[in-house]
Amino acid sequence: MTGAMKIGVAGLGTVGGGLCRLIETNGSLLAQRCGRSLLVSAVSARDRRKDRGLSLEGARWYEDPVSLAKDPELDVVVELIGGSEGVAYEVVATALSAGKHVVTANKALIAHHGTALARIAEEKGVTLAYEGAVAGGIPAIKTLREGLAGNRVTRVQGILNGTCNYILTTMRETGREFGEVLDEAQKLGYAEADPSFDVDGVDAAHKLAIITALAFGCEVDFDAIQVEGIRRVSAIDIAYAEELGFRIKLLGIAQRRNGAIEQRVHPCMVPKSAPIASVEGVFNAVHAEGDFVGRIMIEGAGAGERPTASAVAADLLDIARGAQLPTFGISATALESLPTLPMAEHRGAYYLRLLVVDRPGVIADVAAALRDEDISVEAMLQRGRAPGEAVPVVIVTHETGEAQMAKALARIEALKSCLETPRMIRIEQP
Amino acid sequence: MTGAMKIGVAGLGTVGGGLCRLIETNGSLLAQRCGRSLLVSAVSARDRRKDRGLSLEGARWYEDPVSLAKDPELDVVVELIGGSEGVAYEVVATALSAGKHVVTANKALIAHHGTALARIAEEKGVTLAYEGAVAGGIPAIKTLREGLAGNRVTRVQGILNGTCNYILTTMRETGREFGEVLDEAQKLGYAEADPSFDVDGVDAAHKLAIITALAFGCEVDFDAIQVEGIRRVSAIDIAYAEELGFRIKLLGIAQRRNGAIEQRVHPCMVPKSAPIASVEGVFNAVHAEGDFVGRIMIEGAGAGERPTASAVAADLLDIARGAQLPTFGISATALESLPTLPMAEHRGAYYLRLLVVDRPGVIADVAAALRDEDISVEAMLQRGRAPGEAVPVVIVTHETGEAQMAKALARIEALKSCLETPRMIRIEQP
Repeated sequence: MTGAMKIGVAGLGTVGGGLCRLIETNGSLLAQRCGRSLLVSAVSARDRRKDRGLSLEGARWYEDPVSLAKDPELDVVVELIGGSEGVAYEVVATALSAGKHVVTANKALIAHHGTALARIAEEKGVTLAYEGAVAGGIPAIKTLREGLAGNRVTRVQGILNGTCNYILTTMRETGREFGEVLDEAQKLGYAEADPSFDVDGVDAAHKLAIITALAFGCEVDFDAIQVEGIRRVSAIDIAYAEELGFRIKLLGIAQRRNGAIEQRVHPCMVPKSAPIASVEGVFNAVHAEGDFVGRIMIEGAGAGERPTASAVAADLLDIARGAQLPTFGISATALESLPTLPMAEHRGAYYLRLLVVDRPGVIADVAAALRDEDISVEAMLQRGRAPGEAVPVVIVTHETGEAQMAKALARIEALKSCLETPRMIRIEQP
Repeated sequence: MTGAMKIGVAGLGTVGGGLCRLIETNGSLLAQRCGRSLLVSAVSARDRRKDRGLSLEGARWYEDPVSLAKDPELDVVVELIGGSEGVAYEVVATALSAGKHVVTANKALIAHHGTALARIAEEKGVTLAYEGAVAGGIPAIKTLREGLAGNRVTRVQGILNGTCNYILTTMRETGREFGEVLDEAQKLGYAEADPSFDVDGVDAAHKLAIITALAFGCEVDFDAIQVEGIRRVSAIDIAYAEELGFRIKLLGIAQRRNGAIEQRVHPCMVPKSAPIASVEGVFNAVHAEGDFVGRIMIEGAGAGERPTASAVAADLLDIARGAQLPTFGISATALESLPTLPMAEHRGAYYLRLLVVDRPGVIADVAAALRDEDISVEAMLQRGRAPGEAVPVVIVTHETGEAQMAKALARIEALKSCLETPRMIRIEQP
């Protein structure tokens, strides 16, 4: 047993408070597990007088988190301020440059600056750990970096945003529309006052960028991700999905194909029988495929004070136990800069919902548009008849190319009998 | 980068062959991930001339695996012989005593001798790793030992035997009886010629004993486990479960209660909405609850050449990366010897199926037997009427004690109108 590991916590919001409580509650257990005690010896937050229900006895207080990052007494700096730029970046870069280990739960920071920060960590021989940045309490980073280390990973996908999954689950269970369920989620505290970060898929994309780098040994490339949120998912699509044997989930998906990386976040239809389809409510899940392990999936609470504190604590214990792991599983200098597979080259099956005038020849026109792009139809649903009036038509295609689908959709939209922009949702066969 | 890590593989059966193939296939990736190459430099198996489709070029051949364990050139010995006693034990104990790291996928060995072997490893300052011993490719050990290291674990449960899960899934999907499905599973290679190890719950119990030690920091205590297999699960119970909103799964469950450990393997009814209920076929899953993380579940292939090789490789990479982790998450000398909670003190809800003569007063007699033990009924099903003939009656109780249930069942069985031993299946609310 060596001396206590001295920790500086920058940011005492939800997760920072949770971490201090975890160390208070389970301190002796942690010491037993890593052979030394964990000591919160410095903290930094905006308002010193705020009652956080924490003792923080004997911890030095810093008004300025960057000064905390320079504190020569600290072994590890935990950054829980958030945001991809500004003070959070400065805290992490300063601490690493000063030869301190860093633990962060800041997904935006790692998604935007992960590669550069990993290089600083490697130069200084310290750890940059970020389990809490992806999928809350789920040990997704550890699973990919260590649990599957014997595998060539072929694909990762995940339900990476609990707010979206809660909204989609509730829409399915209640038949209500997006806006109404979002309002309720905001009242319940499951969605922020400004929900765009979550519902537009940005948060999920931050997390996807991180796990992509880890899974494929490439540089973190947030800007390469094709992102679409859930605002346009409507109750009728959820009902059709149910009827066709699917669930609609916002997935982040990354796979390597033709020497390039495909990274995308968008609503997907997944077969109800797929394990990821039954991950409901605020839960998150990460699903990975490796050449030896096959498919594994891990699910749990994707956010919140206590689960995220659990993830941060796991990183601290790894450091206390002396683990020395490269940030993204391989040397930061060896991370490849891989080209992005253009979305136009994506291949998959598609769900289409059209609103057309019910008159002779319409279906023939739609079918011709698909046929001319070599798209074959697996199923078509048309509810009831209403001659001369608007009726929804739902089509499920076999696997085809995104570029072909885009052309066919443009042609369908241009039909006089097509009354609104067709709705398209990609089908994933995990 | 230090020199190659020299590995001796004792046992070239399914998993041993898979491991050699994994190292051949992904060798350069592994070297990139751990900073040194992994070299199979010695092997041992019964028949040298057998064609295993492996090159094994330059590897020394040992007729006697115990001699391999003594080879002074080796850094790590991988034991893939199997069995709790005899040569497997000798190989592991010899290698550890000689100051070599050991990786094994031998659940019977760890379940029976885990504590003693962990003490040898600790004395010698080497690693004893066994990820492949539990749930095949699923990084269950890593998740409990490291991913949840910040938590006080309150409960673990798992689907730990793929053969049983395959049989139960197929029984549900086809409505067929156990014996018929077992025959088919044997033909398909999903069950052994002598299936008792799997279907009687022994294999699941080996794995449960290991995760219990890890989750609760106690000595491995296989003999403390209450074990019941799936031979008595019948098609009619599966059909009733479906109707009542449950699935029948063989679960291994461990929890700490009143300062004691409850460990049991038996068929359970779990709500269909529980994540573990949708783990089907040969898949395994481990579900853990921690005081901060909440509930997490990890699922994947629980057996087989490639998934198990993936787990063994993960252990090897940890060792190559210099990780030094106590075998069961804390020092082997600190593992507690905890008392076993007697099964009589178990509390839970119960499913009962009786075969009774359909005549006035029978239900009243049964109800009285339950009432006198203070057991309250949540639901009762009786199909059709057949005055004077045998009819099944199904009862679901609220939570009660196992001892009370045993008394009530004895009294019900003694009723003249009760035509066979009542069937009881415990209900788990995970």
